Amino acid sequence: MAGADLARDILAGAADRAAALEARTGVRPCLATVLVGDDPASETYVRMKRNRCAAAGIGSRLVALPAGISTTELVDRVGTLSADPAVHGILLQHPVPAGIDERAAFEAIAPAKDVDGVTMHSFGAMAFGRPGFVSCTPGGILRLLDAYDVPLVGRRAVVLGRSPILGRPVGMLLLARDATVTYCHSRSRDLPELVRGADLVVASVGRPEFVRGEWLKPGAVVVDAGYHPGGLGDVHAPSARVRASLLTPVPGGVGPMTIAVLLEQTVAAAEGLVTSPAS
Amino acid sequence: MAGADLARDILAGAADRAAALEARTGVRPCLATVLVGDDPASETYVRMKRNRCAAAGIGSRLVALPAGISTTELVDRVGTLSADPAVHGILLQHPVPAGIDERAAFEAIAPAKDVDGVTMHSFGAMAFGRPGFVSCTPGGILRLLDAYDVPLVGRRAVVLGRSPILGRPVGMLLLARDATVTYCHSRSRDLPELVRGADLVVASVGRPEFVRGEWLKPGAVVVDAGYHPGGLGDVHAPSARVRASLLTPVPGGVGPMTIAVLLEQTVAAAEGLVTSPAS
Repeated sequence: MAGADLARDILAGAADRAAALEARTGVRPCLATVLVGDDPASETYVRMKRNRCAAAGIGSRLVALPAGISTTELVDRVGTLSADPAVHGILLQHPVPAGIDERAAFEAIAPAKDVDGVTMHSFGAMAFGRPGFVSCTPGGILRLLDAYDVPLVGRRAVVLGRSPILGRPVGMLLLARDATVTYCHSRSRDLPELVRGADLVVASVGRPEFVRGEWLKPGAVVVDAGYHPGGLGDVHAPSARVRASLLTPVPGGVGPMTIAVLLEQTVAAAEGLVTSPAS
Repeated sequence: MAGADLARDILAGAADRAAALEARTGVRPCLATVLVGDDPASETYVRMKRNRCAAAGIGSRLVALPAGISTTELVDRVGTLSADPAVHGILLQHPVPAGIDERAAFEAIAPAKDVDGVTMHSFGAMAFGRPGFVSCTPGGILRLLDAYDVPLVGRRAVVLGRSPILGRPVGMLLLARDATVTYCHSRSRDLPELVRGADLVVASVGRPEFVRGEWLKPGAVVVDAGYHPGGLGDVHAPSARVRASLLTPVPGGVGPMTIAVLLEQTVAAAEGLVTSPAS
């Protein structure tokens, strides 16, 4: 189950729409990427995202801020981007350095520009099936499941992990699609038993090869949303592969989907802005 | 497991705070209750809430609107209340008549006045453990569980029902308290088996006596958030009582907690407004 091909299709569609928008209105979609501090992994992610923007005909603006910035200053900078009509989408690279209130900074993103789907408003929209932007990785996971015709209605989904940008929203999206959703996390007991009941497992725990193949119900669909040095995911792939009916690879599974959804939503934000400047 | 005593304590505390606020600032907390149409049950609920406000020294303002009102008009009316400095909390009685977009009307409530905890912003705040108002019934359920020292960390909670003002938020509150949370609903399969694994069951399905005692794990804690004519809940009490270690009664369990939390949050909103008029 590979995300790379599907992501390529989504990116191509986003590029077409961006070109059409620019031809029609002269407006090129613009994603502001906010990078705080000098974490090498974050720098790499932001660079990748900007490269993909360029390849898709989407402008990007890098806002690099020092690690020592205060929450208030960061909120102000994000608020300025929210008010800037030349910016259509805002991505604040997670995580920000310790000591900064990341949630407060996320909330400074205007919902209409929250193309990374990180605000509480976007979370509510995902939970209630309302118009809004989805969190990119969860949104990408749903697109992947749909592309492979994975049935969700009435199926048991176990989400391992409950982060605000991954576990929690993916569970809400699955619930909105009529799955029976169980949230597991670091305080859950008997994880193997909980996983064994699942038709669908989404692993987003941030620990390499944490989920073992022996835990899986034979035939389960397994989405590995982890990424660790050495190309490891959150799932122990060798043992999972023999029991799962589908397993997303790492790399090349969920990862490419995340960026594709981000860019697609950036174009959508730009289109919305052109259509309705008040939004 | 009765909510009536606990609710009385909470109401007494809210009344004390309301009196202190009025003595200190001359401001009496004010709850605007918006009633659309002439559903008798809704009228009764609104009357009950206003009576409780009066008993607690909280002002209330009834805004009764015709069933034929449009979504746009309702949104405007709610928006006006959101902007009115004399109003500290807003309650839009659920459900509004068919044909009106209830969600759009809820979203017109300013987060700082969302004392019923129905906006997407409040939902996000509940999910992420941020400052904000909780949905009243879910918040009341958590208070009840805490009052009875029900352990939550690592325990399996099954939430039956996923409404935006009950099932979904109570699941998020339980997850934030480190329970392992499963959302079940009308499309879930094998409900009895899912319930049997639960240390805590929250029944909010809106169907009388739907949950049977035979489904329960012996010793489970059962919260019945249903209310139906004849004093029936969503749980079949006679069979549940013999297996559950705790079962909330209907009436007198969850119901009184809902109003108590609503009034407490109205006073809190008024206190916040006096402290920081910009909020």
